[in-house]
Amino acid sequence: MKLYTYFRSSAAFRVRIALNLKGLAYEAALVRLPRGEHRDPSYGALNPQALLPTLEDGGERLTQSLAIIEYLEERHPSPPLLPEDAPGRARVRSLAMLVACEIHPLNNLRVLQHLKRALGQSQEQIDGWYRHWIADGLAKLEASLAGDKAGGKGTGKFCHGDAPTMADCCLAPQIFNAQRYQCDTAPYPTTMRVFRQCMTLDAFDRAQPSKQPDAE
Amino acid sequence: MKLYTYFRSSAAFRVRIALNLKGLAYEAALVRLPRGEHRDPSYGALNPQALLPTLEDGGERLTQSLAIIEYLEERHPSPPLLPEDAPGRARVRSLAMLVACEIHPLNNLRVLQHLKRALGQSQEQIDGWYRHWIADGLAKLEASLAGDKAGGKGTGKFCHGDAPTMADCCLAPQIFNAQRYQCDTAPYPTTMRVFRQCMTLDAFDRAQPSKQPDAE
Repeated sequence: MKLYTYFRSSAAFRVRIALNLKGLAYEAALVRLPRGEHRDPSYGALNPQALLPTLEDGGERLTQSLAIIEYLEERHPSPPLLPEDAPGRARVRSLAMLVACEIHPLNNLRVLQHLKRALGQSQEQIDGWYRHWIADGLAKLEASLAGDKAGGKGTGKFCHGDAPTMADCCLAPQIFNAQRYQCDTAPYPTTMRVFRQCMTLDAFDRAQPSKQPDAE
Repeated sequence: MKLYTYFRSSAAFRVRIALNLKGLAYEAALVRLPRGEHRDPSYGALNPQALLPTLEDGGERLTQSLAIIEYLEERHPSPPLLPEDAPGRARVRSLAMLVACEIHPLNNLRVLQHLKRALGQSQEQIDGWYRHWIADGLAKLEASLAGDKAGGKGTGKFCHGDAPTMADCCLAPQIFNAQRYQCDTAPYPTTMRVFRQCMTLDAFDRAQPSKQPDAE
């Protein structure tokens, strides 16, 4: 398998964790987002969305991080990144999407660039925007994780029970982003406890930005 | 089943379509977003994310539109909203997430309100922001749909083949939003052809904003 990735891409980070958790080896193809390499026509031919990551698996080209993780789950079911029961699967997917649909899209590099170039926002204002959506989203994540521990079917050592799932693959990269922007994470103790648990695992540790071949 | 919904919520619209396609009856509980009813503690007790939609199914409370549609697919597999093959499922999910993770989050009501209140943007600037992200995202959707027709495994009458999928449940509400903001849809002929095909189906037609009980 070949993963088109960039060390700071949160979405690529999610897939790196999932590949590691499933013990799947991959070759890294580096796409430097700040240089606009994802907008190169050669990359667009691989991924018409012109976004990271892309996973090549044999003749298949897969895009969108959560769609890729679902594909890996279907093709390589062990160890599972989704629970077996439908309500549990829905809970894990909802937590993953809370990060992927409500927090991360607002803090994407292209959005920050647009705030600067088209809306004339200062770096300070852009940092404020970033922290606002982190705080808004992490408060929702914390409420979801802290409020649902009943019956062993909710939050455990990880987002859902005591083994990592697709939700943890999203949580950990989002916390890296929060820390990079010096967001106060004290209001999110359950979220941070899960994050620390994630980072004890080699699969998460090896996937982190600073350990990628293109890390600056 | 009980769906917490608002006529203009794109995410609720996706789930209304999916419920209709699967022939599942539901009771509508109306949550008026512009009045902030989703931030009411009584709604937060149901959905700690304080977002629409929420689906109640027996004792289960489900959140995040795509997680809900996946749940419906697992519990009520016929008619399917995902193809049978893993690469096809990944393609459909990727198209759905292109809308749900790259376009819609940037144009959410709470984001538009933040642009106005915290960033002091004028209505004209906010409308420009809205149209910018519609144009950016629909260009990516068009490239994805128009460029992948080979072997009957890509775009057909609908986003994937000749029957509606989860991707179409996302595409149609997004086009309603584009039209509401008078975005030029001429550059997206494949997307618009699929949209028109969707709207020939009663399941899509009945789910549209103007036909909801809370429509203004």
